[in-house]
Amino acid sequence: MTIKKVTRQEHDCDYFVALKSYNTGEALHFLPIPKLHLLFIPPFCVLFTAPMEENSSLVAESTLTDAMEAEPQEEERDPESNPLNEPLLKRSRTLSSSPLAIVGAKVSLIESLDYEINENDLFKHDWRSRSKVQVLQYIFSKWTLACLVGLLTGIIATLINLAIENIAGYKLLKVVGYIKEERYLMGFAYFTTANFLLTFVAAVLCVCFAPTAAGPGIPEIKAYLNGIDTPNMFGATTLIVKIIGSIGAVAAGLDLGKEGPLVHIGSCIASLLGQGGPDNYRVKWTWLRYFNNDRDRRDLITCGASSGVCAAFRAPVGGVLFALEEVATWWRSALLWRTFFSTAIVVVVLRTFIEICKAGECGLFGEGGLIMFDVSSVSVSYHIMDIIPVAIIGLLGGFLGSLYNHLLHKILRVYNLINQKGKMHKLLLSLGVSLFTSICQYSLPYLGQCTPCNPSFPGSACPTNGRSGNFKQFNCPKGHYNDLATLLLATNDDAVRNIFSTNTSTEYQPLSLVIFFLLYCVLGLITFGIAVPSGLFLPIILMGSGYGRLIGLLMRPYSDLDQGLLAVLGAASLMAGSMRMTVSLCVIFLELTNNLLLLPITMIVLLIGKTVGDCFNPSIYDIILHLKGLPFLDANPETWMRNITVGELADAKPAVVTLRGLEKVSRIVEVLKNTTHNGFPVVDSDAVVPPVGMAVGATELHGLVLRAHLLQVLKKKWFLREKRRTEEWEVREKFTWVELAEREGKIEELAVKKEEMDMYVDLHPLTNTTPYTVMESMSVAKALVLFRQVGLRHLLIVPKYEAAGAPPVIGILTRQDLRPYNILSAFPHLAKIKGNEKRN
Amino acid sequence: MTIKKVTRQEHDCDYFVALKSYNTGEALHFLPIPKLHLLFIPPFCVLFTAPMEENSSLVAESTLTDAMEAEPQEEERDPESNPLNEPLLKRSRTLSSSPLAIVGAKVSLIESLDYEINENDLFKHDWRSRSKVQVLQYIFSKWTLACLVGLLTGIIATLINLAIENIAGYKLLKVVGYIKEERYLMGFAYFTTANFLLTFVAAVLCVCFAPTAAGPGIPEIKAYLNGIDTPNMFGATTLIVKIIGSIGAVAAGLDLGKEGPLVHIGSCIASLLGQGGPDNYRVKWTWLRYFNNDRDRRDLITCGASSGVCAAFRAPVGGVLFALEEVATWWRSALLWRTFFSTAIVVVVLRTFIEICKAGECGLFGEGGLIMFDVSSVSVSYHIMDIIPVAIIGLLGGFLGSLYNHLLHKILRVYNLINQKGKMHKLLLSLGVSLFTSICQYSLPYLGQCTPCNPSFPGSACPTNGRSGNFKQFNCPKGHYNDLATLLLATNDDAVRNIFSTNTSTEYQPLSLVIFFLLYCVLGLITFGIAVPSGLFLPIILMGSGYGRLIGLLMRPYSDLDQGLLAVLGAASLMAGSMRMTVSLCVIFLELTNNLLLLPITMIVLLIGKTVGDCFNPSIYDIILHLKGLPFLDANPETWMRNITVGELADAKPAVVTLRGLEKVSRIVEVLKNTTHNGFPVVDSDAVVPPVGMAVGATELHGLVLRAHLLQVLKKKWFLREKRRTEEWEVREKFTWVELAEREGKIEELAVKKEEMDMYVDLHPLTNTTPYTVMESMSVAKALVLFRQVGLRHLLIVPKYEAAGAPPVIGILTRQDLRPYNILSAFPHLAKIKGNEKRN
Repeated sequence: MTIKKVTRQEHDCDYFVALKSYNTGEALHFLPIPKLHLLFIPPFCVLFTAPMEENSSLVAESTLTDAMEAEPQEEERDPESNPLNEPLLKRSRTLSSSPLAIVGAKVSLIESLDYEINENDLFKHDWRSRSKVQVLQYIFSKWTLACLVGLLTGIIATLINLAIENIAGYKLLKVVGYIKEERYLMGFAYFTTANFLLTFVAAVLCVCFAPTAAGPGIPEIKAYLNGIDTPNMFGATTLIVKIIGSIGAVAAGLDLGKEGPLVHIGSCIASLLGQGGPDNYRVKWTWLRYFNNDRDRRDLITCGASSGVCAAFRAPVGGVLFALEEVATWWRSALLWRTFFSTAIVVVVLRTFIEICKAGECGLFGEGGLIMFDVSSVSVSYHIMDIIPVAIIGLLGGFLGSLYNHLLHKILRVYNLINQKGKMHKLLLSLGVSLFTSICQYSLPYLGQCTPCNPSFPGSACPTNGRSGNFKQFNCPKGHYNDLATLLLATNDDAVRNIFSTNTSTEYQPLSLVIFFLLYCVLGLITFGIAVPSGLFLPIILMGSGYGRLIGLLMRPYSDLDQGLLAVLGAASLMAGSMRMTVSLCVIFLELTNNLLLLPITMIVLLIGKTVGDCFNPSIYDIILHLKGLPFLDANPETWMRNITVGELADAKPAVVTLRGLEKVSRIVEVLKNTTHNGFPVVDSDAVVPPVGMAVGATELHGLVLRAHLLQVLKKKWFLREKRRTEEWEVREKFTWVELAEREGKIEELAVKKEEMDMYVDLHPLTNTTPYTVMESMSVAKALVLFRQVGLRHLLIVPKYEAAGAPPVIGILTRQDLRPYNILSAFPHLAKIKGNEKRN
Repeated sequence: MTIKKVTRQEHDCDYFVALKSYNTGEALHFLPIPKLHLLFIPPFCVLFTAPMEENSSLVAESTLTDAMEAEPQEEERDPESNPLNEPLLKRSRTLSSSPLAIVGAKVSLIESLDYEINENDLFKHDWRSRSKVQVLQYIFSKWTLACLVGLLTGIIATLINLAIENIAGYKLLKVVGYIKEERYLMGFAYFTTANFLLTFVAAVLCVCFAPTAAGPGIPEIKAYLNGIDTPNMFGATTLIVKIIGSIGAVAAGLDLGKEGPLVHIGSCIASLLGQGGPDNYRVKWTWLRYFNNDRDRRDLITCGASSGVCAAFRAPVGGVLFALEEVATWWRSALLWRTFFSTAIVVVVLRTFIEICKAGECGLFGEGGLIMFDVSSVSVSYHIMDIIPVAIIGLLGGFLGSLYNHLLHKILRVYNLINQKGKMHKLLLSLGVSLFTSICQYSLPYLGQCTPCNPSFPGSACPTNGRSGNFKQFNCPKGHYNDLATLLLATNDDAVRNIFSTNTSTEYQPLSLVIFFLLYCVLGLITFGIAVPSGLFLPIILMGSGYGRLIGLLMRPYSDLDQGLLAVLGAASLMAGSMRMTVSLCVIFLELTNNLLLLPITMIVLLIGKTVGDCFNPSIYDIILHLKGLPFLDANPETWMRNITVGELADAKPAVVTLRGLEKVSRIVEVLKNTTHNGFPVVDSDAVVPPVGMAVGATELHGLVLRAHLLQVLKKKWFLREKRRTEEWEVREKFTWVELAEREGKIEELAVKKEEMDMYVDLHPLTNTTPYTVMESMSVAKALVLFRQVGLRHLLIVPKYEAAGAPPVIGILTRQDLRPYNILSAFPHLAKIKGNEKRN
């Protein structure tokens, strides 16, 4: 890496950062960077260290720099006055496509997934020869797996709930006991130590065994379904760490939920089931071999994700819609039905456990129960004036949601700096947050006032001394309750239930609600990035309900809407403002609160929240995706993509590497060793076998052969002494489609003898003869639509000319080539058009 | 048409039917038809009449013959022994693609829609030059239109409800009055006459003014969103007839609902708003010009359809999901949000009206109210034994649903025979059904027993004499009620409410329920096909609730589930068995019955119902689509489509008609007159303008030009004296993109002078330079995926060879070419593969 300090006068920036191509080592990309920005470039992005000139601070730039920040820099740069004297023209015409992303605080090489149907001779023969019984087997296994995913997700979700409720419950009972005896310091010590230890367990597991288990996992699942295979995301270790870590972190009273992790857990279960167990101990059951492809795994993981949401919120329809709206990139109605089946199973499992626990056999579980913030007792009647508090909540949700996204983004960057420094730092950060949380939760309630119990309040006894309940006595005299303790010294689920409680309009003091809201704003921002499994749903619900109820309190003279209801609306609005979902959130809230009459106002709040939020920044999941450098393809192409053709993109890339239909072994080995491409076009020139009726000089695009299949050829040594086309039975004798479905192996591990190097391979039967193609005159916008809609990994570019001797394929597009940021760095003039458009 | 009788010994069939090509008049297609089948071929399918040989019965075959019946015939036929001595080889290699379908009992030419983005110079210039203000205008109009669609749909739905409740209400009050006075015959006469007149109004309007308004309209909307433009479906006349006809038909007590028609009404409103009014009186408002394209209209109609469902069931989320699951072919999350907005508006409108009507200002409306079958009062607790009645109901729903589909299919074919005979026959059929319905509804209750009122029944007074209510006195003494009258002598909405009523386990006698169920089975089958606006939802709900409640009655000793609940489940199961929806039905039922605890069992019932139904036949909407001959493209390609390439399809079609980039006017006129194609590939050969660096003999595919744009050129007489490429400003001076967006005009209406015939046209600026292409080696299965996923009208086939002088495009695929039935008739060997696969 070359880093050069230039004077501020020259470029209004302090540093130039050079990025080298991952493959060729050639310098590709130069970015001027203001000194202040260095703070926000996480050092773990340092991909290449190199001697520096004039200045010795360590700077780097990677795919991480998000487009939002890169664009103004692009405009600032003047290509004519480049102080590094590098071939700028070359640079500006080259597409960089570094397939790197951050996975669990490590920079990893990301593989794309291939959702296209590979129609080579072997696979085709397999389909044709599949008997009715095998087809039925396949269908039966598909549904069995969907059922198992639901079943296991449901069981694990119940066990997690059970563990959390019991651990947190006994912890809180003990603390309440100390407080009752007025041993406040002892209570504090016990509370803090317990939380500290629980966090320690969760964080150590995450840090040492499965860094990918930290965080919610939803962005990575979203990326997987978009076609990006993040390594180690769906392994057995990740699953186990996620389960135990989630129990520890939630029981430790941290400001995070088990909802996001449950989605990840569901997906892990689905992935493991589909491939027959963890990587090293796979069950090679014949029935499962049909699922050894990216398409079926994608479907299973979609089922898993919706089961997870369903298990988290007991919202079966909401789970399906969440998967549909937020997570999935491709969707078809058959999948709708199968995910629905999975979530139905989850609900049945949850209901069964609830019935069992009602009998009191689950310890403290059952008192709090599965979360279900029931506000169905409220009778809703609207008046025209109610629109004012509802609109205010919606607007606030939008503003605060986008502000939350913005701040969280900044904090995550700073956290990345800290996490990068080593495992110890990660651990200390988590424990620090845990300590801070415990101190606040225990000490702040002393600021709350003691309020006498009001006999008109419905439901639970007042004051309550137990673990859960709406009117905590805490440090108050008999017959009084401390409203702040009710909110803070409880599990998160209980806190939500308490703040959602209806018909209790005088329960909370404004000051308590303000303290509660501010505390959870701070906690929500600092907790998410630490190295434990953490969901975003619950922190946002807590924050949102805080200001929702506060507005209810303030608007009391003008509106009859119940405060509990407004707390629900506040939570919904903040979720809409931050996560930007509509229909799925609406249904989740519907199923969560069990009150259908809330529907119209929930819808209005969600619409306002999302609209306002969209004016400022993208959704929180998109921000995290971006921050992790995952090459996610958006649904809508940018408008400037209509002004560039795929032919121009192909020109900016190195020439396409093609193979001949009958290829020498040495050439295959050479190509595999020297490139990292995953697909190679197979071209027949008439020098080999001139097709009947073709003029001399004709070339033919036979199709696309995958790297994995070439490796199989080399591994099995299917070499021919003479240069000839093989018969179909020859290849079928050597390969089965099951072997071709495997994606393992590396070229470095294979040894090819010297005498074999001169032999030939007939690539025809292994070539996918029906790759999707676009003409070179196709605009990038339309190519992107095709790429995403059909779920491709490679898109071949064919010439629009018919001419003798011309190559039948002039380029190959992959996911990275179609990313707006990469295109803009190769074609800066497009950015200017974009800028102009914006200015107009 | 040539029809020949052959002996049964020869072919095991009586008749041969020949189909002629619609364009060339050439005989394309021969089908042997057993005599019995003649009965089931509706005579309105007679496309060509011709002298017959040996036999004089009128036989015809059209696109109507569905694949299910055609396949066995294909197998029976022996191509070697063709008695007609026609060139069978030619036939079996030719793709027939007759674009004909039944629209409102008339056979019409169907146009496809074009959802692809046309990237020609003019449109591209327009996008580039659109100012920020114009973009905001567009976005603002989009949301305003979505809002207006919701608003108008909500208002019209309320007005329809109001009219129906009042008309039917006063009618029933009068009848009840006569019965109270024991003037039974007078009551009968009044009841029958009123129903007769109401049906007469509805039917006359449908028959004379808007035949497309008959039926539910949902299949046509589904087809529209798939890319098929059924003529006269979304006009102003259709809308008005649909509204009035729906009021008449429902108020007449016919066994049909207003739900399907409301979906159609919503879509009509959306379409009319989008194009600025009815065809002849369009408002040419500049803001609306952006919506003059198929893509935006598609989005609007999706909004309209979901608003319609929302208005019908007061189910906003259900409406969105219905559009997503059942109606829409393409979907994106931006649309999810906009439809959600529309349905939110509908709900607000409905709620406002309900508030107004609660004050008693809506006549009889408000007593019955908007349909809302509230069963929220039931406290649901499940036991393991409850699974038995639930499973039985699910199974029955699947069986009966598919049986209903099967029988309805047959009856609709017979009805088509009758309707074809003329307007009078259509009218008489409708009136006959109305008479039969009235007689049954009035006379059958006399079979019901009088039961003494049970004071433990909740809610309404017993017996009730008013229009609505649960315990109709009818002919019974005081203190008694007639349970059959409660079900039959009420509006359909009331009947559903009464049979769904909870905590009334002894209200209905088994015999009454059996009579109710059987009557509505018969009515449900005979009513749907008559010439009035009719929905399928309500008849199916009525049937389903009948057997659901009956099973509840029978299972009473074994299960504690409420009978009203089982009636709801019965309705859900039959809908799943017939319509095959899952998630959307589940949410609609949730919102309809207002009981979230029902969710798990509803899900199970729906899953069982759909699974069982899918074993027998496709969903009712698919059957109707097929019956109407609408060329709907299914989401999943057939497995045998992997065995045929698009190159083979192209060979079976006439050679593709291409134009040159600089083309003579005479050639354009000739091509437009002699073909019906809508798109022509534009090919540049180097004889014209050799591109730099291209060898002699090179040809270039420039793109695809649309018929509409060629017509515009001829209309505007944009001819060049010399053969030269034009500059961009020249074409922009002559054409605006607004003109190009118009799709009107016919070649016959244009006059081109003789001296103009020798001039030239530069087609380059008008050509869409980025059409989607596939290589000839692409399998039809994958081409179909591309065609449907991207929403194409034309798909160009390019050769896989690069050779001098070869044509750069070898074929063009349209919707008709990709339909399984058409491919199978051209390639019968595929059907054999398919048959073999089935047999295996």
